[in-house]
Amino acid sequence: MKKLWSGRFKEATEELVEEFTCSLPFDVRLWRYDIEGSIAHAKMLGKQKILSAKDTRTILNGLNAIRDDIESGKFRFKSELEDVHMNIESALIKKVGPVGGKVHAARSRNDQVALDLRLFMRDEIGDILKLAKGLQKAIVKVADKHSDTIMPGYTHLQKAQPVLLSHHLLAYYDMLARDIERLEECRSRVNVLPLGSAALAGTTLPIDRKYVARLLKFPKISENSMDAVSDRDFVIEFISVSSMIMVHLSRLAEEIVLWNSDEFGFVELPDAFSTGSSIMPQKKNPDVLELIRGKSGRVFGDLVSILTVMKGLPLAYNRDMQEDKEPLFDAADTVSACLNILVKMLPKLKFNKKAMEKGTEGGYLTATDVAEYLVKKGMPFRESHGVTGRIVRLCVESGRRIDELELKELKAFSKLIGKDIFNYISVSSSIANKRTAGGTSGKNVKARIKKLKGRR
Amino acid sequence: MKKLWSGRFKEATEELVEEFTCSLPFDVRLWRYDIEGSIAHAKMLGKQKILSAKDTRTILNGLNAIRDDIESGKFRFKSELEDVHMNIESALIKKVGPVGGKVHAARSRNDQVALDLRLFMRDEIGDILKLAKGLQKAIVKVADKHSDTIMPGYTHLQKAQPVLLSHHLLAYYDMLARDIERLEECRSRVNVLPLGSAALAGTTLPIDRKYVARLLKFPKISENSMDAVSDRDFVIEFISVSSMIMVHLSRLAEEIVLWNSDEFGFVELPDAFSTGSSIMPQKKNPDVLELIRGKSGRVFGDLVSILTVMKGLPLAYNRDMQEDKEPLFDAADTVSACLNILVKMLPKLKFNKKAMEKGTEGGYLTATDVAEYLVKKGMPFRESHGVTGRIVRLCVESGRRIDELELKELKAFSKLIGKDIFNYISVSSSIANKRTAGGTSGKNVKARIKKLKGRR
Amino acid sequence: MKKLWSGRFKEATEELVEEFTCSLPFDVRLWRYDIEGSIAHAKMLGKQKILSAKDTRTILNGLNAIRDDIESGKFRFKSELEDVHMNIESALIKKVGPVGGKVHAARSRNDQVALDLRLFMRDEIGDILKLAKGLQKAIVKVADKHSDTIMPGYTHLQKAQPVLLSHHLLAYYDMLARDIERLEECRSRVNVLPLGSAALAGTTLPIDRKYVARLLKFPKISENSMDAVSDRDFVIEFISVSSMIMVHLSRLAEEIVLWNSDEFGFVELPDAFSTGSSIMPQKKNPDVLELIRGKSGRVFGDLVSILTVMKGLPLAYNRDMQEDKEPLFDAADTVSACLNILVKMLPKLKFNKKAMEKGTEGGYLTATDVAEYLVKKGMPFRESHGVTGRIVRLCVESGRRIDELELKELKAFSKLIGKDIFNYISVSSSIANKRTAGGTSGKNVKARIKKLKGRR
Amino acid sequence: MKKLWSGRFKEATEELVEEFTCSLPFDVRLWRYDIEGSIAHAKMLGKQKILSAKDTRTILNGLNAIRDDIESGKFRFKSELEDVHMNIESALIKKVGPVGGKVHAARSRNDQVALDLRLFMRDEIGDILKLAKGLQKAIVKVADKHSDTIMPGYTHLQKAQPVLLSHHLLAYYDMLARDIERLEECRSRVNVLPLGSAALAGTTLPIDRKYVARLLKFPKISENSMDAVSDRDFVIEFISVSSMIMVHLSRLAEEIVLWNSDEFGFVELPDAFSTGSSIMPQKKNPDVLELIRGKSGRVFGDLVSILTVMKGLPLAYNRDMQEDKEPLFDAADTVSACLNILVKMLPKLKFNKKAMEKGTEGGYLTATDVAEYLVKKGMPFRESHGVTGRIVRLCVESGRRIDELELKELKAFSKLIGKDIFNYISVSSSIANKRTAGGTSGKNVKARIKKLKGRR
Repeated sequence: MKKLWSGRFKEATEELVEEFTCSLPFDVRLWRYDIEGSIAHAKMLGKQKILSAKDTRTILNGLNAIRDDIESGKFRFKSELEDVHMNIESALIKKVGPVGGKVHAARSRNDQVALDLRLFMRDEIGDILKLAKGLQKAIVKVADKHSDTIMPGYTHLQKAQPVLLSHHLLAYYDMLARDIERLEECRSRVNVLPLGSAALAGTTLPIDRKYVARLLKFPKISENSMDAVSDRDFVIEFISVSSMIMVHLSRLAEEIVLWNSDEFGFVELPDAFSTGSSIMPQKKNPDVLELIRGKSGRVFGDLVSILTVMKGLPLAYNRDMQEDKEPLFDAADTVSACLNILVKMLPKLKFNKKAMEKGTEGGYLTATDVAEYLVKKGMPFRESHGVTGRIVRLCVESGRRIDELELKELKAFSKLIGKDIFNYISVSSSIANKRTAGGTSGKNVKARIKKLKGRR
Repeated sequence: MKKLWSGRFKEATEELVEEFTCSLPFDVRLWRYDIEGSIAHAKMLGKQKILSAKDTRTILNGLNAIRDDIESGKFRFKSELEDVHMNIESALIKKVGPVGGKVHAARSRNDQVALDLRLFMRDEIGDILKLAKGLQKAIVKVADKHSDTIMPGYTHLQKAQPVLLSHHLLAYYDMLARDIERLEECRSRVNVLPLGSAALAGTTLPIDRKYVARLLKFPKISENSMDAVSDRDFVIEFISVSSMIMVHLSRLAEEIVLWNSDEFGFVELPDAFSTGSSIMPQKKNPDVLELIRGKSGRVFGDLVSILTVMKGLPLAYNRDMQEDKEPLFDAADTVSACLNILVKMLPKLKFNKKAMEKGTEGGYLTATDVAEYLVKKGMPFRESHGVTGRIVRLCVESGRRIDELELKELKAFSKLIGKDIFNYISVSSSIANKRTAGGTSGKNVKARIKKLKGRR
Repeated sequence: MKKLWSGRFKEATEELVEEFTCSLPFDVRLWRYDIEGSIAHAKMLGKQKILSAKDTRTILNGLNAIRDDIESGKFRFKSELEDVHMNIESALIKKVGPVGGKVHAARSRNDQVALDLRLFMRDEIGDILKLAKGLQKAIVKVADKHSDTIMPGYTHLQKAQPVLLSHHLLAYYDMLARDIERLEECRSRVNVLPLGSAALAGTTLPIDRKYVARLLKFPKISENSMDAVSDRDFVIEFISVSSMIMVHLSRLAEEIVLWNSDEFGFVELPDAFSTGSSIMPQKKNPDVLELIRGKSGRVFGDLVSILTVMKGLPLAYNRDMQEDKEPLFDAADTVSACLNILVKMLPKLKFNKKAMEKGTEGGYLTATDVAEYLVKKGMPFRESHGVTGRIVRLCVESGRRIDELELKELKAFSKLIGKDIFNYISVSSSIANKRTAGGTSGKNVKARIKKLKGRR
Repeated sequence: MKKLWSGRFKEATEELVEEFTCSLPFDVRLWRYDIEGSIAHAKMLGKQKILSAKDTRTILNGLNAIRDDIESGKFRFKSELEDVHMNIESALIKKVGPVGGKVHAARSRNDQVALDLRLFMRDEIGDILKLAKGLQKAIVKVADKHSDTIMPGYTHLQKAQPVLLSHHLLAYYDMLARDIERLEECRSRVNVLPLGSAALAGTTLPIDRKYVARLLKFPKISENSMDAVSDRDFVIEFISVSSMIMVHLSRLAEEIVLWNSDEFGFVELPDAFSTGSSIMPQKKNPDVLELIRGKSGRVFGDLVSILTVMKGLPLAYNRDMQEDKEPLFDAADTVSACLNILVKMLPKLKFNKKAMEKGTEGGYLTATDVAEYLVKKGMPFRESHGVTGRIVRLCVESGRRIDELELKELKAFSKLIGKDIFNYISVSSSIANKRTAGGTSGKNVKARIKKLKGRR
């Protein structure tokens, strides 16, 4: 098939080359944005008298008809036409005659593809924001339901101090809050009109870029044509932000996988969110969570791909940049799918309150409280830490919990210890006493939940 | 050496383990922030009566004295003490006696290290912002000097259309402008006080976190203690932003390496910024630029490191997170060094105006102007593109430039072509005609330079 | 649809979960290997009397029929059946009745998927080896044709010394030779039978794994069932080797892109391997090469993906590992496509001998020869390097080539310089004199070409 | 300080440039290899009469003296001299006079640095091989000691089937066996002499490369000078292999971290290999293992760094390649340190046999055995899987283990079930029955251990 750019060529493109360079299989996904952009461009060409009113109408009708054709499944994309842009332009010319060829005045595929990508990403970020906020909402709901559930808090996967499950879950709320900020800021940099930069230098035709920006709801236009066509910052930034989201989701997934193990037994997955084994009939596996954890890998990989592609490219557009789309689409789809399934799954988790509470009993979780008790009595923390360490060693050796030691035994470690120590070393008082800002006390956490419920 | 946390241990740590887990060789760099944080923490403990006024004074004096010791080179850091925090706490106890052990009340190394890192990064980002703005300034200055220098603009490393060198350079201004935005936004998320989260659950001591935040100039405090100690988003985000900066610098470096080749001959490096060959006496190599280009690799690597570290970690702190510092320091140092040397080097580049201008002569760079000329005469762009392609083929075959064709010959391609075509196809008119927003016309570019000069 | 593993479940799987966990869209590609493996497994079960002769025949007929159905396009894969394995087993049961359910005895999807992947990779590596050897052959052919073509050799993209184009191209032969070694070694580790490891512990049924290995032409069987099902080393290793190949191809691509620029003018791409611009009618772009260069990014990304997935996974199989296939397939497809198009393209490049030769004239390329001339006369190299440097400076300042200086002028730099220097400083003698092993002399290079032509 | 290559330069190098380009801080580590290479080179120059016997002696004495100086700490490296090579050459000239300048004849830093790196890596790989084999030995020893210890085998972190701890551990033996193969193969490609390639084209001096190879024990010499100086495959390959090792070690580390949790309780770390908490006196943390797990990140990052550096570099040497050393050194050091500490730590782990055995009781771990029992009775596996699933559901609902069901109850699920089922569903028979190659039966595992002990 004759290429639209073949004027200067004598030989036809090798079929293998067509296949190798063809981006249609993935960029076809941008078709709606491509038409939307062309419509705005055509309207502007009309307004600027670069197109006659009649030609403008013809073109707009043609573009609308193509949209209808695609929506209704009547349109046949042809891979010989390289990409989505050439497919649509070709179809337009076929539909309305040579006048269709007027729509490409004052633009190039270079600014057109940048435009389509930005339009796509704007929508995609909007969707992901909704999902992320949905997950925050689900977290608040579960936290609210479990505002009194006690569990061991871990560091180094060793029991450290008792915390509230709700407090633990709200940590993810805060991670998502940062993700949301980053997505919104990223969107503000996506939201810049590149069209009108043409191939790299601008155009000699009297276009009105601000008008196009208004039509397409871009608050800003790009200020340098060479930057506009060679910039893929917005893709890199989006995949960076996505990688961070996947870090967060992989951590949450890891925790639920752990909690769902027979050994922890903190949570049971609903059957509807588990899968079985082809050989072991008894298995009920947390596949969804494992996949979320594993899918962090593909988003990190997407990030490395696009960074590698852009490294060291001279200005302006280079064909290497065609490799931007697949990592972008993959990252967006992965993040969306993972958020979406967590939104649905989280509220269905059955937390085993008893097992969690029981988990706080072993492990000397209130040792820090003992140390802080001694601090309140005037002992330097570093000393009180040592004293408590020795108390713990006695517990380990005699197989008892701290609160099973007798006052006499305790006093042997320090004269500062009095009867009131027993008010400080139960799990419930430990939690209740963590009252300073950000701490795990019920009072704090409930206040936070109330505020967050109100916010949304 | 006895560990400050050894109360519960019977065996001493294996020496090999000490070595393996020791972070002092790199975290020693945080010493100033560690002391700054301890001073603020101690003041707050005093204000809250957790420390007596006397103890507070003693501790503050001790900390100040340690700072002086370190500054004057008298302090001996000991790697058996694991990290910078334990070194300073140990020294404090040694200096002021057991009362020094009181400073660690109501905090843990978990929130302390998060604090130190955030203080470090806040400064570091400030420095990098200055350098990035300095590079913008240098770009504007060079662009201003070369506001009339013409050069070929490239796509696919093929000559595409004539552009102004200043326009080309200003593309980098815009990249840096986005980098600056991202750095500032990243800083706003760095700028959150984690201290007071203690190990993971908060503390039972009556601390005042907002007071500490005021002392340390943090506009916000963290809202969830578990998030506060297990969060390294700010590190990941900073290295992401740094990776993007390195993408930009690697592109600039690549271009100057190309331009500096004998074949391009667009730029000469000053001797003072070049290096020679150990064997080839004639060589003058652009090593600085090659290193900048190559150093993108280390920052991308840093990003992969920290993402890998954080993937799938359960809450809260895990020792894996000690691996955050080296990639962070490396990324910060690399970005600073590369920006810094470019700030110095850029103004010293000798651009070869003649070679650049000559470069616009071959390559049919005004072909797009011919096509747009025909559009203005009413021909659909897609047709005019074909017509111009055939004109170019004639030029290739007859070894002439477009403006060396005779009107008669041109007219043979389209009756729409008139004498006025010769006003559209010279290099200088091509540039001058790119007047729409973001285009390369001298008028545009000069206005932009004027504005940017004013801005700073 | 009822899952084959659903015996223990009360609730049906959520549709969203089905979608999220479904691997059919990508693992369907393994169907042929899955059937091949099942056939070998069934034959073994028959031989071991775990299946009756009749059941065995029924199953084998069923599997063959399914293969025919898939080949002829009659088979309908169902995504509700999760993956290719369950699709085929389901179809078998549907085709031959409950006896079809006997084929999964003594195996699990865990060892089945490992088997399918290994069979796939064995073929894929075979294909890539052929392509890599094909590219070597193409290189030798082009080098042979250009065994006398002279060009500047570069370091730091600065002209360094004259070399033969053939010598330059043969550097890529050696890179590919290493790639081929690595691929073959990787294949030897792929070529290990995992089947019979069942889920993770082996099986209680009396299977004969060595017999299966013979049927499937595996020289070895895995020695530990837990390793066998949790090992993806072979995937990581293959993508590592692929990344290296892409490094090499990206370097070659970069060079041809450079050489194809107007400034270098060393090579012209055939129209059939170039593409045009949608806006600039004169452009003929090296898109194929740019894409090859850019595609290195996706393979590096694939590597990071699979490394991230596998990091820190406890034994044995975890669902994260389903994320192994897409990066593997992507890397294999990318490497194949890039090698394949280079095999076709390389012989069609038109090297511009004159431009290359002319390129050796500037740049004082024989300065090292002057230095070595002085060494032969007894001057320490370090001194001779300095002397030559000063000669070059004179040339730069007086705008002459080294061989345009007069003997008198040269002698002023060192008394050791005699008339015979002029036999050492022409480009052709410079090349001819590089006779030691691995050097660029025509004699060396021709001998190597002869040997390599013979080898293949 | 005057540069050895400064003949052609008029301006001195900017100090900032010196700092930026200086590689001494890291390449100083190569000093011993640099001298070793220079000695071999000088001997060859002597043998070939390029150096007189006297000059050769002088140079060799000088080099040996420098080695002594460095070893005894008397040598002062100067960063103004850029790198280790120039430092040593400079010192040589200073020590023996201008004759020292003769050693650089017929070589360049380009082939010298390639040589030094290869010598370094050859040693380093040798050391790592020893450590990896040491870890294998430690594994076999622990497995031998625990050849009867029973534990739950997991998939998806869910209990799957009972296995032997020894079988589980030996999975890591096999991973390391593959790592060892890959290291040895990598070494064979490291083990190639690049010296004599000079800057890129070879040399005009009559050197004998094979003689140098013999002196330095290289079995092969490089065959193409341009490849020899621009090849960093061996660095990439080594870091790839290192990344794989880190994947394996991170998995082992993750498992021990899990097993060491209070919830699993399968293993206790010796105090000497644990660390405490700065705040929580009771903590005994598996920091070493967490660091190993986290350090996988740095090696993956190193791999991305070097791949990024090499991507798209034109031949031959470019200064970007100086960025090869730090990732290489970091990967080698990290892998060595992690292997080394595991070799020491593994034998000191205290496995809690009782807890492991108890862990096999819950979770219906012999369900697969029931299914295989039914297969032996003639039921198709897919059916028997379903039947067993339903049996498990009864157990879940009635809170019993499979072997606590009565025969009558069992028979209700299938008439094929007889009294003999109770011989198949105990944990010990389950393990003993996994007798086929690679399975977990005691017989298998003991035979393997015996063989592996013999091997070493």
